Amino acid sequence: MKQLINSNRQIRQQLLAGLAYTYNDKLNWQTKTGIVTKKSITDNKVVLISGGGCGHEPAHVGYIGENMLDCAIMGAIFEPPASAEILQAIEQTYNGCGTLLIIKNFEKDLASFLEAERLAIAKGLSVAHVIVDDDCSIESGTFKKRRRGVAGTVFVHKILGAAASEGKSLDELQALGEQVIPLIKTLGVAFSPASPIGIIPQQYELAEDEMYFGIGIHGEPGYRIETMQSSERIAIELVNKLKQQYDRKTLKQAAVLVNGLGGLPLLELGIFMNDVQQLLDIEDIEVVYKRMGNFLTAYNTNGLSLTLLTIKEEKWLEYLNAPTDAFGWK
Amino acid sequence: MKQLINSNRQIRQQLLAGLAYTYNDKLNWQTKTGIVTKKSITDNKVVLISGGGCGHEPAHVGYIGENMLDCAIMGAIFEPPASAEILQAIEQTYNGCGTLLIIKNFEKDLASFLEAERLAIAKGLSVAHVIVDDDCSIESGTFKKRRRGVAGTVFVHKILGAAASEGKSLDELQALGEQVIPLIKTLGVAFSPASPIGIIPQQYELAEDEMYFGIGIHGEPGYRIETMQSSERIAIELVNKLKQQYDRKTLKQAAVLVNGLGGLPLLELGIFMNDVQQLLDIEDIEVVYKRMGNFLTAYNTNGLSLTLLTIKEEKWLEYLNAPTDAFGWK
Repeated sequence: MKQLINSNRQIRQQLLAGLAYTYNDKLNWQTKTGIVTKKSITDNKVVLISGGGCGHEPAHVGYIGENMLDCAIMGAIFEPPASAEILQAIEQTYNGCGTLLIIKNFEKDLASFLEAERLAIAKGLSVAHVIVDDDCSIESGTFKKRRRGVAGTVFVHKILGAAASEGKSLDELQALGEQVIPLIKTLGVAFSPASPIGIIPQQYELAEDEMYFGIGIHGEPGYRIETMQSSERIAIELVNKLKQQYDRKTLKQAAVLVNGLGGLPLLELGIFMNDVQQLLDIEDIEVVYKRMGNFLTAYNTNGLSLTLLTIKEEKWLEYLNAPTDAFGWK
Repeated sequence: MKQLINSNRQIRQQLLAGLAYTYNDKLNWQTKTGIVTKKSITDNKVVLISGGGCGHEPAHVGYIGENMLDCAIMGAIFEPPASAEILQAIEQTYNGCGTLLIIKNFEKDLASFLEAERLAIAKGLSVAHVIVDDDCSIESGTFKKRRRGVAGTVFVHKILGAAASEGKSLDELQALGEQVIPLIKTLGVAFSPASPIGIIPQQYELAEDEMYFGIGIHGEPGYRIETMQSSERIAIELVNKLKQQYDRKTLKQAAVLVNGLGGLPLLELGIFMNDVQQLLDIEDIEVVYKRMGNFLTAYNTNGLSLTLLTIKEEKWLEYLNAPTDAFGWK
């Protein structure tokens, strides 16, 4: 596997320069930092901030926009930004309405973001957070759920983003996040691992005819290696595992996200989406919202994840449908 | 390389089912055919039709929408649709204002589309076509330009689509196309070939440290294999080759498309875009419009193409900027 870069050291800088150039009508990038903000931060709503390592594009810069994020802070590849930079972003975007941090549930991410939150609060700013832990993969050999924050995070960006635009307070947004997040469940499968050469050691290998269920978004291993199967068989595994996460009575209406991990052609995502649809039909789960594409990737991993979200309130659907100009939200 | 499919025979059917399901607010798919149309065909404008083989997603179904295509007809993977199906689409979408076919310059595509046009005209319908031949790759060993129709085709969809919405006649649209197309130039590079296993024989191989300039969108070989280089060096090769295609005096204002071929992470496209920007700056070429992403792919080819279009008239820029709900036009 090859990489189209100039040097490992310059990845974040040059990626953000490229994104800021391409979307200069929407984004401001603070050169030499990992901080990207919406063209203008309005002063009448809670500021929404997320972030993480590079390598998940279009996340999170792609979710800056109307009814979504106000700011994303990007670290090096697969590494969260430093707390100092997060603090800087919180201070620079602060508008008096409070700031909500949307954090993916990884140890390093929590350390950086919560430290920044603590420092900001000590400075008198009003900051809160929600932690997304939608991954249902389990550790092989145990029944421990990994609960990493993965593709479902983009549903949180959208729902909280639209709710913030509506004028909800920091407390209300945090409460809404805590209501929504437990109803988001994601499971991934890889046919080849992530490959940021010379940056992150490859954590597993797959033979020519193998696939791995339950992998993570930084090349982490999954829960079971199997012989490569048809799209339909893979859809059955993911849908079955996901629906077991819910109280079946509540899973009547769902939002669905079929997310490519970066190296899977859209053609194959389309075929997989068709299989998912048929399975959800059989289960009598009404899909009231659906998205398909590369939303939160794992560098060029050949694989995908499937996310379900129970739509418990009509309002959540309105938030998902609210218009946005965020370039990642196609 | 693995494939997430169910069977080779069912690829087109199941892909279109997945797309039609995902975008059922925008698209109508005529089950069992390769014909996908806009939800409703208005009767006050020329109908725009394009198409080709599957494997180029989001092209061409992703360009059906406001200010773009009215209909796309998809064949099997990397195979254009049969003329009978194209004729059927022309007849079914015919509204009396005439129909323009946008054809990529490949022998098989021309055969199918022009035969359908001939048959439709024989039936008394008003049909015309434009042929997109933006590829500047040359055959190795000769100086013959290949002139295949590649990623620049999406600029034609957009410009002619918006011009059609404005009420231009069939003749005017064809003339506009013939003005725009010679000013669109594209060149691609691959780091690994397309791999629709068992469907299309792989036409070249690359070693671990090799790349190929001038490759096509169906896995066709390019004009020169070189040792893998930095993003900046690759940008220099592509920009230099492209600018030689123009009368330098006319290349003042350009639209730029950095197109991923399906297997390249968005992170790397971003880095490459940054290099392209710097080179065009040095050349004093003003970029008045830019897009970056997977627009016209070659299955999961790890590679990209760069497209330039000279903006000769302000109006072309207006057309590029016209809003659209086509899902491929992000």
